[in-house]
Formats: sequence, structure tokens, C-alpha cells
Amino acid sequence: MPAMTRWLSCAFALVLGLLASTPALAEDGYDLWLRYLPLPAAQAQPALAQLGTVSIPRQNEVQRAARDELMRGLSGLLGQAPREATAADAALLVVGTPASSPLVAQLRLPLKGLGAEGYLIRRVEHEGHLLTVVAAPGDVGTLYGVFHLLRLLQTGQDVASVDVREQPRLKLRMLDHWDNLDRSVERGYAGESIWDWHKLPGWLDPRYTDYARANASLGLNGTVLNNVNASAQSLTPAYLEKAAALAGVMRPWGIRVYLSARFSAPIEIGGLKTADPLDPQVRRWWADKADEIYRLIPDFGGFVVKANSEGQPGPQDYGRSHADGANMLADALQPHGGVVMWRAFVYSHEQPDDRAKQAYSEFVPLDGKFRDNVLLQVKNGAIDFQPREPFHPLFGAMPKTPLMMEFQITKEYLGFATHLVYLGALYEETLQSDTYRPTKGHTVAQVIEGQGHALSGMAGVANIGSDRNWSGSIFDQANWYAFGRLAWNPQQSARAIAEDWVRMTFSQDPAFVQPVVRMMMDSREAVVDYMTPLGLHHLMGRGHHYGPAPWDAGSERPDWDPVYYHRADHLGIGFERGSAGSNAVAQYAPALAKQFDDLSRVPERDLLWFHHVPWDHRMASGRTLWDEMVWHYARGVDEVASMRGTWAGLSAYVDAPRYQQVASFLAIQQQEAQWWRDASIAYWQSINGLPLPAGQAAPPHPLSYYQSLKFPYAPGHH
Amino acid sequence: MPAMTRWLSCAFALVLGLLASTPALAEDGYDLWLRYLPLPAAQAQPALAQLGTVSIPRQNEVQRAARDELMRGLSGLLGQAPREATAADAALLVVGTPASSPLVAQLRLPLKGLGAEGYLIRRVEHEGHLLTVVAAPGDVGTLYGVFHLLRLLQTGQDVASVDVREQPRLKLRMLDHWDNLDRSVERGYAGESIWDWHKLPGWLDPRYTDYARANASLGLNGTVLNNVNASAQSLTPAYLEKAAALAGVMRPWGIRVYLSARFSAPIEIGGLKTADPLDPQVRRWWADKADEIYRLIPDFGGFVVKANSEGQPGPQDYGRSHADGANMLADALQPHGGVVMWRAFVYSHEQPDDRAKQAYSEFVPLDGKFRDNVLLQVKNGAIDFQPREPFHPLFGAMPKTPLMMEFQITKEYLGFATHLVYLGALYEETLQSDTYRPTKGHTVAQVIEGQGHALSGMAGVANIGSDRNWSGSIFDQANWYAFGRLAWNPQQSARAIAEDWVRMTFSQDPAFVQPVVRMMMDSREAVVDYMTPLGLHHLMGRGHHYGPAPWDAGSERPDWDPVYYHRADHLGIGFERGSAGSNAVAQYAPALAKQFDDLSRVPERDLLWFHHVPWDHRMASGRTLWDEMVWHYARGVDEVASMRGTWAGLSAYVDAPRYQQVASFLAIQQQEAQWWRDASIAYWQSINGLPLPAGQAAPPHPLSYYQSLKFPYAPGHH
Repeated sequence: MPAMTRWLSCAFALVLGLLASTPALAEDGYDLWLRYLPLPAAQAQPALAQLGTVSIPRQNEVQRAARDELMRGLSGLLGQAPREATAADAALLVVGTPASSPLVAQLRLPLKGLGAEGYLIRRVEHEGHLLTVVAAPGDVGTLYGVFHLLRLLQTGQDVASVDVREQPRLKLRMLDHWDNLDRSVERGYAGESIWDWHKLPGWLDPRYTDYARANASLGLNGTVLNNVNASAQSLTPAYLEKAAALAGVMRPWGIRVYLSARFSAPIEIGGLKTADPLDPQVRRWWADKADEIYRLIPDFGGFVVKANSEGQPGPQDYGRSHADGANMLADALQPHGGVVMWRAFVYSHEQPDDRAKQAYSEFVPLDGKFRDNVLLQVKNGAIDFQPREPFHPLFGAMPKTPLMMEFQITKEYLGFATHLVYLGALYEETLQSDTYRPTKGHTVAQVIEGQGHALSGMAGVANIGSDRNWSGSIFDQANWYAFGRLAWNPQQSARAIAEDWVRMTFSQDPAFVQPVVRMMMDSREAVVDYMTPLGLHHLMGRGHHYGPAPWDAGSERPDWDPVYYHRADHLGIGFERGSAGSNAVAQYAPALAKQFDDLSRVPERDLLWFHHVPWDHRMASGRTLWDEMVWHYARGVDEVASMRGTWAGLSAYVDAPRYQQVASFLAIQQQEAQWWRDASIAYWQSINGLPLPAGQAAPPHPLSYYQSLKFPYAPGHH
Repeated sequence: MPAMTRWLSCAFALVLGLLASTPALAEDGYDLWLRYLPLPAAQAQPALAQLGTVSIPRQNEVQRAARDELMRGLSGLLGQAPREATAADAALLVVGTPASSPLVAQLRLPLKGLGAEGYLIRRVEHEGHLLTVVAAPGDVGTLYGVFHLLRLLQTGQDVASVDVREQPRLKLRMLDHWDNLDRSVERGYAGESIWDWHKLPGWLDPRYTDYARANASLGLNGTVLNNVNASAQSLTPAYLEKAAALAGVMRPWGIRVYLSARFSAPIEIGGLKTADPLDPQVRRWWADKADEIYRLIPDFGGFVVKANSEGQPGPQDYGRSHADGANMLADALQPHGGVVMWRAFVYSHEQPDDRAKQAYSEFVPLDGKFRDNVLLQVKNGAIDFQPREPFHPLFGAMPKTPLMMEFQITKEYLGFATHLVYLGALYEETLQSDTYRPTKGHTVAQVIEGQGHALSGMAGVANIGSDRNWSGSIFDQANWYAFGRLAWNPQQSARAIAEDWVRMTFSQDPAFVQPVVRMMMDSREAVVDYMTPLGLHHLMGRGHHYGPAPWDAGSERPDWDPVYYHRADHLGIGFERGSAGSNAVAQYAPALAKQFDDLSRVPERDLLWFHHVPWDHRMASGRTLWDEMVWHYARGVDEVASMRGTWAGLSAYVDAPRYQQVASFLAIQQQEAQWWRDASIAYWQSINGLPLPAGQAAPPHPLSYYQSLKFPYAPGHH
């Protein structure tokens, strides 16, 4: 029945075409960057010819994960399920390791040096015809290779001459969940915790699998399930059983489970009188606890610890050092291959002269004193995840200790879920900073790549929750994405990553891709401008960090107050960290210290971070500092208006639900950017008494109005 | 091109057929009972012939809501979008009011007496051909009629001879959300609050519209947005603006917004020194507040108030009565047409002899003292939403006051989200209870239908949250559904409603429908059996109400403790509420009081509710009370095992994601039913020292084990 067949395929093509050309009604962000919508015919046709018949093993759970993803991805992208070759020789696409695929073994590919997680993708000739091969020394490598191949297709790249050789530059690529056992999320703006602890282990939400898939697609290989402000309950048998159930979901996707450990757990759930790390009973308790955990989770990753910081218990409670504490836990985990990620974000209870200096002061003397299975986890800056901070002076200052980067993906200080801020730009700025240690040209990225240590890593404080779109907004997915890609390779370009994300998440149309990438790349400077320009920091509402509150003062700790950080008075503004002040600059390499100390050489973007500066200080632009500040606020607000305009012109390229959410959020962002500008200016004027530059509108309300606004139910504050 | 057309339609039919026969991959419960999947051809064909061309107005937002739903529903069910008739005469299906549709006006249908919300659906002959007509006096009636027509199709009914005349038997059909402004939900087991207060009014989640659609499909016409344990903040301008945005979403669907009002708001946000309801300043404050609300929300419904109960402020704080408090608010709302729903769930701070008696004692003397726009909202039983309670003695006891029913849809005391318990059976049991007031045969349903009062109503404490499936589990959707249908008509059969729900939610196949409906109908007795058989009540873990804790004692209030309610000792068990005890039985009509007081006539299902009974009391079965209790526990556990078996046999009829979630939850339920049985028996045996009947297994753990289990993070407890 050739006629019927012809008409049938014609009709089918029509239906499929309709499906493909209409933005899917159900797009709500759940599928993230793994949407696998049909490629344009011009791309699908050759891809089908090159990849339409596959050979991929499925003997173990990692192989099955890779295979299922490959089938899911190709079926969607090519518009039809690929055939599975009965014999490997008949395949166009061959995936495997020398152990899992005789054909891969036979091809004698240069797999050496790729390590357990590396892979290569290339076209090879075999018995007279061309094959596409995804090959790796280990199964997880093939999983990553499959995701890479799918990404090439998703981003419109020609796979005819593919030649990729990849391995991660960092060993531990971690998402840290600040998730509590009651499902609240500290600094979470995307709903509840995705972990439904109450129903675990009996109910394994399919969402857990999709979470693992998304992380594996980026090469992330670890997840810390619970908040660094940890409850000891997470180490009780009932909760370990729940964690073990999650580990079972993660394992096929190459992801290990870690837990935040509460340092005082031996007291709280162990019945001991002390948590002194040198006490033999305490050491025994942790060793037994590690044994218990590894019986349930044989590939358990290890512990993250926040100790002696913001009221958390720690070794200093017993007169011991951070090294004593970390090493005690490291010894408990060592027999099982586990690691300790000890956080450097510490500040003492006593009033310090400059909080920015504390981590450096406490940890540099401990360099070389940690066990081999300890990493020190350092935030990107010395304060706390501000819109902009100079890189943390610890990077480069502890050559005998592997330092991990801790970035925040959730936007605690950058507008929560509604503000469009692409953090790739922030991450890149930090990673590319030159530490001058040991010499000029050694970037933060190079420091965290290990510099000869066996361990290396990067942790991101997750922005993931129960919201349908995972991250609270579509564009916040890009921050998860960029973090993951940079954790694999901190040298990558934030712009290139943004472009991949836009193509995979929305559309490959250049008329869409170009303006959206531009908007993303500019968005970070916009938030710095409208919130905290020129090195200002920590001016957000106390506690919840929502909105402007530079006037906040009187906390139990002065260093929780905005006024501690901006130090504005009638003469000037900024925190003097130069040699005339706290001398925090001295924590940097001498060349940098000198530059930062010098008012004429310090980068203007960090000016008020490092110096208290007169309001009439002359800037490079020729404007006074005050006029320059006002100009930055205005530019930030304008930039958001411009982002809104850009988006408004792109509705034709996006399905209605996602378009509308982004549009609504941009409107909120514009309103709040204006609020930041108005409230900040009203407050600074109350201090400096200066007029606004010509053409700048006065804030529409008196300062008292902005000060009266209260947000007792702002999210993320627990 | 007739050939091409033929083949095309053939191919299309095939594709559509494939789509229809494969359970949709994306089924996750979001679509509730409004899935609108294609009908079997045998039903779709005639329906298309009868309904395939429609005339329906779209001049205002209610009409547009009805039209959009009709189009969405018919397009899905019939497999193709219906045509819209250019002239009403050409239509097969005509929807409208005499005002909105000249054709409806011309047909002179008997719309009189249907009221603002009633409708009729019938086939009429018009100019020689048959029309299907959905006609109503008001637009909202046509909306309800459209949903009714769609339900007829969804449940497989023949619409060829449709003849429906419907109007609601209750005026106020309400969902009460116990949702806090921080998005936590008191007694919520389905994620966070669906109201994203922080992003309102800037972001209107499409979920709000789907919420409104689902409620409208049941005839619900009111929603209380915030917890009865209310924050005064919800009455501040910022939050009223947010509520107004939600009211705008609800309005096209016939749903009014209400708020829980905190009685002390004049102090907390009004700056007054008192909230005394007789104070002129307080009265003025509330009148001004009402004016302010109605400026923002012209169709605002009114207030719900929990006063002088569980620590909430109220008129008694000032020596005033509940009537004083309710009337003060009623006077503020009256000019705008708003109502006050005053909750009868009160108990005083002083230690009472029997908490079950308090509401009756406090409110019966106030009968006739309330304003016309006040309803008294009474829980179904006198304690608190237990698996079984005798109906509340207030029903029938206050003939001069409109009494509203308050049911709990969320399963605070019935296994949270994981236990499959169909509450339709519970609701029906209460509604069909004979109050004997004024005389035999007057049921609770009749009492709440108003008995001549202008107002009547039913409120359900919502089980809705941010979970993708809305209610935390697929089967908990049935409780929302059943509540809504019974609020429209309290005389309906719970079984018939369950059958509609199963057909709409899963499948019309009798091989599926019959066993599932049976399972649902039996499920409520199962939970009574394994948790609190024979009139036992309130034995759940203190505070969170998760799991068995009959041993709990020592609360700040004795009537929060299980031991207060079961009063077990070596002689017997149960709360003596007969004339020899608290004499709560005397609150019922004399005939009932006599029956309940008589150990030989009291229904066995309520035995230990009304009496303290010796362990060796002889039951109708011939067993002793103790043996009978053990028998009930066992039957409850067995019933859950049987439900699990039933479900396991039905996987072919359900898409995999929903099948798997239900299966996992049933496994959890079975485990927890066993736990309830074992822990309860271990505890009772520690008191009565009695052996288990032959064949009954001893609990696998000692009592101390069950007592040691702690659940600090159980959901819903804030």
C-alpha cells in the first residue's frame, strides 16, 4: 500500500511538525535544559544518519542510566527513537568502555589519562565506515559523554567532525543543600526542600531521579543533603535510612551523597557529655557512626562541617583548633574513603575589628596541619555572598591545604527568585582573579584546581526546591547550570555557558539567543549597581536580607548590621580596610595589597569595600563619589528597564507560561530596583545632606517611609 | 482532493488513537478530575453529533471562563475542537442566560426559582431540530452547568436525553485554608501554601486559575485565604493588595475571597489599646477596615473568626460574649454585604470536666442573639476531626442561628497524605445523622440547609498545597472532590460521588471502577479500626498527631493528652460521658441522649466515646471488649493489606507515575497501620495485663520501643 504509506507519513509529518512548531503548552520549566525537543529538519536529518543506530551497554545501573538518557535524548531530538544495533558493528553510534564494549576495546582509543570520569567523543573509521564513538575508561565517563553528545545536538553543533576529549579539572563537584529536616530551606526561594524526609524511605519521588539527571548532565558528582546549620537528627538511624534511599537514587548518575555533620552530635544523640575532638569516647563515637553510615551507604562521600561560626558548636568550645576538629572527623571517615569539607566561614563571638579578616587569621596558621582527606571550603569572598566581593584572601594563602570554592547559587543577597541575575559572570570574575600567589598570573581557578593536592573541589549552595521549575525562576536555572559547568572546568567562559543554556532552555534562534545572552551577561552588573555599587556591601534588610535597609543597626552582633559595613558619615562612606584602617588588604599578596591600599589604584568597583572615602572624592569619570553613586543606581534601574524591554520583544520565541513568568518577575525586579535606588539615596542624603545631580529624580517618599517597610514573612529566613 | 483528505483523517485518527490509548506520560495528578482525555469512539461520535457546534457568549469574564472551559473540555473529550456557531440557530449546543443569549431567551425555559447559581441542562426542539441547552438565570449558573455537562461526558453518561435541573442547597460553599503568611500550612501535608504571598501581587501563578477552575467544577464559591490562627498582618494594606490580586483571579470562576480576622488586630496593627467589641474606637476601626477592604475587593465575602480558643484572642478577653464579638464584625461588614463565620470550636483556658461539652454550653444560650449576617461554624464532632465522632450536639440545638458545617479535608488525624482514606464516607455519616431535633428524621444535613435562615453553608479545611498533585496524594484529591460535591448538595451519596471521581480521575473501565470505589468506601472504616476503634479518639502523637501515642500525658493542657480521652485503667477503658459521668449525652435530643446513655443501646462504634467500659464487657459479637478491640485492630490492618492487593491488580489501568505513587503510599499505610495496632496493643496490655486472643501476634517490640519513637519534624505542625 505505497499510497497509503505515503499519505500516512505525510500526515504524521504534519502532526509532528505542528507539535514541533507550536511551543508546547506544558512548558513550565520542569524539564530544565534537558527538553530534547525535535531539532530542525536540516539538523535532524544528518544527525539521524550519523547517530540513528546505537550500541550502548546496559549491564549495570550506571550504564542503564547512560543508555536511558541517550535514548530519551535522541528520541526527542531526532523525532524518532534510535534503533539499537543487534551487533555493535552495525551501529553508527557506539558508547562504552573497553570493559563494557568489545568494539570500544578493539578501537584502541587513547583513553589513558582520562581518569574515572573523563571521556572522549570522536568519529572513527572502522571496517570501512565512519562511527561516532563515546568512549571512556569508566562507566561514569560514558554517562558524561552521552550528556556532552546530547548537548552538542541541543546547541546546534555539527557532530560530523566531533572531536572531544574531556575530564573534570576538579575532583569534588558539589551541590550543598541548606535544607532542614522540616523541609524548610535556609535562604531558599524555590519552595520547600525537594527532600520529602517524612515520606522517605517509603516514597521515592521521581523528582529525585530528575534532579540526579540534571546534575549528572553538568558533571556534578556530589550532593550534601542537609543544611550546614545541621540538626544532629540527620545522623540518627531513621534519617540515615532515608539518606541511604536517596543515595540509591543518585548512585546510577555518578552522584555521591554527603551530610552536614553537627559537631555536637555525640552529645545530642550519642549521650556523651562532651564533643571534645581529642576525647577518646568522642573519637570512638564518630568512628562507630562512620561505620554505621558506610554499612548503609557504601559510597558515602563524607561530611561538611560548619563549626564555631554563627553560634554553631565546634572544637573551639573545648579549646581545640579547627584542625583538631576536622582531623578527628577525617580519621573516622578515612578507612572508608570519605572526606571532610571544613568550612572556613567562621567568625568568633567576640566583637572583631573587621569580620572580613577572621577566616584568614584563623586558618592560615593551620596550613599543613590537616589530614589528607580534609578540604577547606572557602566562600568566594570574605564577607558573605554579596553582589560583588573581591576574591577571598585565603585563596593562594594556604598552599599546603586543598582549598575548595564555595559559591552561593541561591540568591540570598541578589534579589531572591524574582531578580534576573546571571551568576556565571560573578563566578567567572572570582575564578579569573589573579591571586599573585605564588606569583602574578596564578588565578583563583588555578588555586582550587588543587596545585598538586589529591583533592580539589567546588561547592555551590543550591537554589533548588519543590517549585515546579526547580529554582524559583526560569533564569535561576541558568545559575545552577553555570555553576555545574564551572565546577567541571573553572576556566570556561561564562558567556559561552550562558549561550549553551539559552539554546538548550529556550531556542536556538540567533534573534533570541543573542539579546538574551547579552541581557544575562549584563544582569550581574545591574544588580551591583542598583543594590551596592562601588564596593558597598551587606546593606540588605537584617535577617531576611530582602530589600534595602542601609539604616539597620542595633543587632546583637554589630557585624550583622548594614551600618557596620558602610560606615557612612557626613564626611564620607566605606569600610577602611587599608593600612590606615583594619589593614585587611595585608591579607592579600604584597603586590595586590599595595594596589588595594592605594586609593588611586584600587579598582573603583571595590572602592568602598577597601576604603572610607570622602563624598567629594573625584572618580575616574570626573564625577564626585556621591554623584557617581547616584549615577550607578540610575544605571542599574535603567538596565533592568532595558532587560524588560528586551524580553518584551521576544515573546514570539518562548512558550506563553515561561514568557509570562519571566515578564512578571522582570516587572517585580524593576519595581524593586527602583525601591533600592530610592531608599538608598534617601538614606545617604539624610547623612551627607548633598543634593542630587541634575536630572536625577528625588525619591518619591521620605526616608521614614522606606524605613517603615517590614517583611516579617520574607522567604528563606528560618 | 478527497483521497488525500480521507488518508489524512485516517492518519490523524491513528495518531490521536495512539495518544488516547497510551496512558499519558506526564500524568502526575496536576489535572485532577479535569483531565478531559478523549472519550472512546463509541461515546465520542454521538457526543460530537450532539454537541459539536456550540453557541456560548463571552461578553464578561464569567462567560469567558465558562466558554474557555467548555472549549477545553469538549476539545479534549471529543478529540477535536467544537465549532463555534456563527448564528445561535446553527448550534447544536447552546449555553447562556436569557440576558446573554437571545436564543435561550426565546426558548422560554423554566428558569424561575433556580436562583443566581442554578441551571438546567436539557434537550429541546427548536425549529425542527434538537438542541442541547445549558441555561441559567445567571452567568455563574451557566458556568456550573458547563462543568456539569462535561462531567456527564467524563463519567460516560449518555447526553442524548439529558434533563438536569440543579441548584445548590447551601449558600456558602467554602474552602478554608489554614495557610500562614510564611507559606507554612497548619495541618498541611501537601507542601507549602499555594499562595505565594511574597511574590503577590506582582506574580499571578497560573496555578491560582487552575485552583479556581477545580473549585468551580464542584460548585464551591468561597475561599478563606489564611489560617484561622490568623496573623493581623493579613489585614494590612500590603496584604490586602495581595488578597485583591487573588480575588481578581477567583472572580471569573464565581469564587469570593474571605479572610480569617484576628480579633486583636485593632491593637496589633491599628495602634489601639483594646480590641473590646463594645469600644466605639474598636468598632470604628473595624468599620474603616471593612471600607478599605471593599474598596480593593468589591465582592469580598467576609471574615472567619477563631476567637477565645486555643489561646486566640476574643471578646471574652474583655468580658464580652461571642455574640458581642461576632455582631461587632457583622456590623462592620453589613453595609457591604459581607458575612461573619464565627467558629464554635472554642474551649476555655480553665480545666473543664469534659472538653466535648464546651461549645454547646457556650453557644446554646446565645441562640437568637446573632446578627442576620453571622453564621456559626461548627465542626462535625465535638472534639476535633477524629477518624470517627458522633455528630456535634449543636446541630439542631440552635434553631434561631444558621449553623455551618466545618469538615476537615486535610487528614490531620487520619494518616496525613500517605493513608488512603476516603472522607466522603465520614462526611455522609455525619450529614445523615438524625438529630431528633425538632423531631425524629431531621438530619444534620437538613439543619445546615438552613431551616428557613437566609444563610447556610459548609466549610472544608483544605488539603491543598504546592505539591504537584495539589493534595499530597492522588486519592486525597477525592476528599476535596467529595467535600465540594456535598457542599453543593449534602444529600448526595458518597459512593456515587466516589464513582464519579474515579471515572474522571482514572478510568471508566468497570473492571477498575468497581474495585476502586469499593476500596475507597471501605477505607474509612479501616482507619477507624487500626487507629481508634469502638469510639476511642485523640490517641495520636501530641502536637503533630502523627502515629500512635496513647501513653502521652503531661501537656500544659490535660485535654491535649491522649490519656485524658481514653482513661484506660486496669478495670476498663473509655470516657464516661453518660449520666454517671460528664453527662455530655444530655446535650443531644432526649431520645438520643437516652440511647447514648444506655450501655446496651449505644452504638458499639461510639461505645468508648460515651462510656468507660470494663475490659470484659460482652460485645454483640460475643467477644469481650478487649478481644473485640484486638479484633478491630487486626481487621484494620487486614483491610489495608487487601487495599494494597486490589491496587496491585490494577496497574494496567493507570499510568505508571500515579500507579507507583499510590502503591508506595499504600505500602507506607500498611506499615503504619501495623505500627498503630502493635503500639496500641502493647500499651493497653501494659495497663490491663490481658493476654491476646488466640491467633493474634504479640507486638514485635516492647512498649518502650514505641514510646521512644519521636518525630520532631513531622509535617503540618507549626
